[in-house]
Amino acid sequence: MNWNPDLIQEVRKRRPLVHQITNEVTVNDCANITLSCGASPVMAHAPEEVAEMAGWASTLVLNIGTLHAPQVEAMIQAGRSANKKGIPVVLDPVGAGATSFRTETAKKLLERIRISHLKGNAGEIATLAGERAQVRGVDSGHVDDIRTIAIKAAKKWGLTVIVTGEKDIITDGVKWAEVSNGHFLMGTITGTGCMCAPVVAAFAAVSKEPVSAAVSAMTTYGIAAEQAAESAKGPGSFRWKLFDALHSLDGAAVREYAQVEWGGA
Amino acid sequence: MNWNPDLIQEVRKRRPLVHQITNEVTVNDCANITLSCGASPVMAHAPEEVAEMAGWASTLVLNIGTLHAPQVEAMIQAGRSANKKGIPVVLDPVGAGATSFRTETAKKLLERIRISHLKGNAGEIATLAGERAQVRGVDSGHVDDIRTIAIKAAKKWGLTVIVTGEKDIITDGVKWAEVSNGHFLMGTITGTGCMCAPVVAAFAAVSKEPVSAAVSAMTTYGIAAEQAAESAKGPGSFRWKLFDALHSLDGAAVREYAQVEWGGA
Amino acid sequence: MNWNPDLIQEVRKRRPLVHQITNEVTVNDCANITLSCGASPVMAHAPEEVAEMAGWASTLVLNIGTLHAPQVEAMIQAGRSANKKGIPVVLDPVGAGATSFRTETAKKLLERIRISHLKGNAGEIATLAGERAQVRGVDSGHVDDIRTIAIKAAKKWGLTVIVTGEKDIITDGVKWAEVSNGHFLMGTITGTGCMCAPVVAAFAAVSKEPVSAAVSAMTTYGIAAEQAAESAKGPGSFRWKLFDALHSLDGAAVREYAQVEWGGA
Repeated sequence: MNWNPDLIQEVRKRRPLVHQITNEVTVNDCANITLSCGASPVMAHAPEEVAEMAGWASTLVLNIGTLHAPQVEAMIQAGRSANKKGIPVVLDPVGAGATSFRTETAKKLLERIRISHLKGNAGEIATLAGERAQVRGVDSGHVDDIRTIAIKAAKKWGLTVIVTGEKDIITDGVKWAEVSNGHFLMGTITGTGCMCAPVVAAFAAVSKEPVSAAVSAMTTYGIAAEQAAESAKGPGSFRWKLFDALHSLDGAAVREYAQVEWGGA
Repeated sequence: MNWNPDLIQEVRKRRPLVHQITNEVTVNDCANITLSCGASPVMAHAPEEVAEMAGWASTLVLNIGTLHAPQVEAMIQAGRSANKKGIPVVLDPVGAGATSFRTETAKKLLERIRISHLKGNAGEIATLAGERAQVRGVDSGHVDDIRTIAIKAAKKWGLTVIVTGEKDIITDGVKWAEVSNGHFLMGTITGTGCMCAPVVAAFAAVSKEPVSAAVSAMTTYGIAAEQAAESAKGPGSFRWKLFDALHSLDGAAVREYAQVEWGGA
Repeated sequence: MNWNPDLIQEVRKRRPLVHQITNEVTVNDCANITLSCGASPVMAHAPEEVAEMAGWASTLVLNIGTLHAPQVEAMIQAGRSANKKGIPVVLDPVGAGATSFRTETAKKLLERIRISHLKGNAGEIATLAGERAQVRGVDSGHVDDIRTIAIKAAKKWGLTVIVTGEKDIITDGVKWAEVSNGHFLMGTITGTGCMCAPVVAAFAAVSKEPVSAAVSAMTTYGIAAEQAAESAKGPGSFRWKLFDALHSLDGAAVREYAQVEWGGA
């Protein structure tokens, strides 16, 4: 169960272009976190150009956080362009389970596009895995249950699942990793969930191992959050310190502070 | 004339879900201020889902700051869903008076939805109250005139009016309060006006007294701004310090620093 | 070759209203930088109101960073309203050259509206000037080549061109200026390019000399960035310090730190 704590250095060297079709709330945060980890963001969502833009990109992020109908078509076009090019596609099904529009759209994207990484919280992933009944239990933090659901979802669609939470679970349906990095202040601002997706995408763009890339991304991002929280006095200061921390983090710190547990396989 | 300086503690305990259909400029600020006062934000504006989302919510905010046509229909649908559920609805008629599209839309929302709180600056409220001729005088700060207009508007629609300014005026058409908390640095960044609305909504969701809830919200928010300004060196630092200050503010501080004057009734 | 280091004081005195139709990623930054330099922002993009809003404004900014089809029509309407009123119009053709939708839209705007200032990076301006073949060389930093292209573009459309880069080039096709202010941290956050446009627009609104106004704007903005960078520890802190620095900058500092070289004519 190898993973590369130095993968952020590779991101900085190769500066992958991360094309993102995302929500209006955290779009700025997503662009800035992409830059802070050393990659280049491009946000473009018009049906007239998404396929062309995805053709320039090294990886694609689809986030349905403020979904509206024309965006669905744009996501499918961009996804197909990305699939044709063979680059990673990260799906963040924000709010799946909250409205049927979001649940159905997330399912449609999973059916029509070859997604490489599906990232969500326990409720979102459980909904998509068809485990709606267990969502409450999941939200209460039964880590074993969440892992079972994550493995089921990964097998169902043949992709890498990342379930964010106190412990992040990453699995391809066979092997799994639990990452314990991160900080409770992440829950006091919007966007800390959304920002995972472009970080995972940037790391996946410079790696051939989807699970290992996600572990590198989630440890690196979580450790940056821990360092930001050290001197933060609340959500406002935590937010800008997160960008500073990620920007100056190196592989040595990731190696030293990463908390990863492996299992399965 | 009672009001509850500890209402923020109730917000933190019950974590009301604040559904917001708002503008693109300050949507991130509005989500973050909602979190900083202890409530949960959800932003959703697609006609396909707004009624369903409002059905989950404890309160609804409608802000027309970057209005476009499909948003109007979504606002009406969400508003009706909120009315059916009996939760507070806060309307922020940003730019009413500046273009007829905004003025007419604000009026349409007031006619078709039962709004609980109408929050705007003096010019916006005066326009909607049909006092266009006096707007210039109002902007110059004739507080007595503004109060008269606020009372007229509150009576006209049977709701609580909040007019923001150097002194914020809050009235249900009978009793009124003037809140003097706040700081001039609020005018040096975008979003300090918009952010009032979700704060008022979060407080209204955990209270049965619309005027008192608004007074609690505006004092709490204004005191957070004062505390943020103390060590701010300009608009950039003021902005993030506002989130830190609100997040750590408690009822004791609100009780100590609130500047409220009551009248009417 | 005169320019006015004190022009920011004129902006603060007259507080021009800067109407912006811009992208979703940096719209908040653009509003805040407008306020930090002493002007007033208004963001409005609905076809129903743009012409009316532009009629209130002192200047107009068009930024195609997250272009979608209805926005094109809104930009043309707002542009015509601005032209009728005779106020400056600044175009930021973000991503021209990356997709044909953006390239064609930028050209359409240049044909149908009288633009006063065209601001972009070397690749964007070269694409629009028909120098696509040289884009690579341009990106590598051949300043002489870039200046030649900027002069060509300025002549072609009869406007002032601003090419941002390590040295910013400003020209009306006859005389040119090179501004060396700025800092590499600007490239570590999103929005530093976009924010130039409303700053240039605000300065152009209070001046009768388009080139001189742009030089005042770019030096002022670049010096603010230098001051912000002095104590910044990364992109997060740089970002908010930029707003603080611009807000407190005065003409004396601009005069002292400006690095401008003139030529041509």
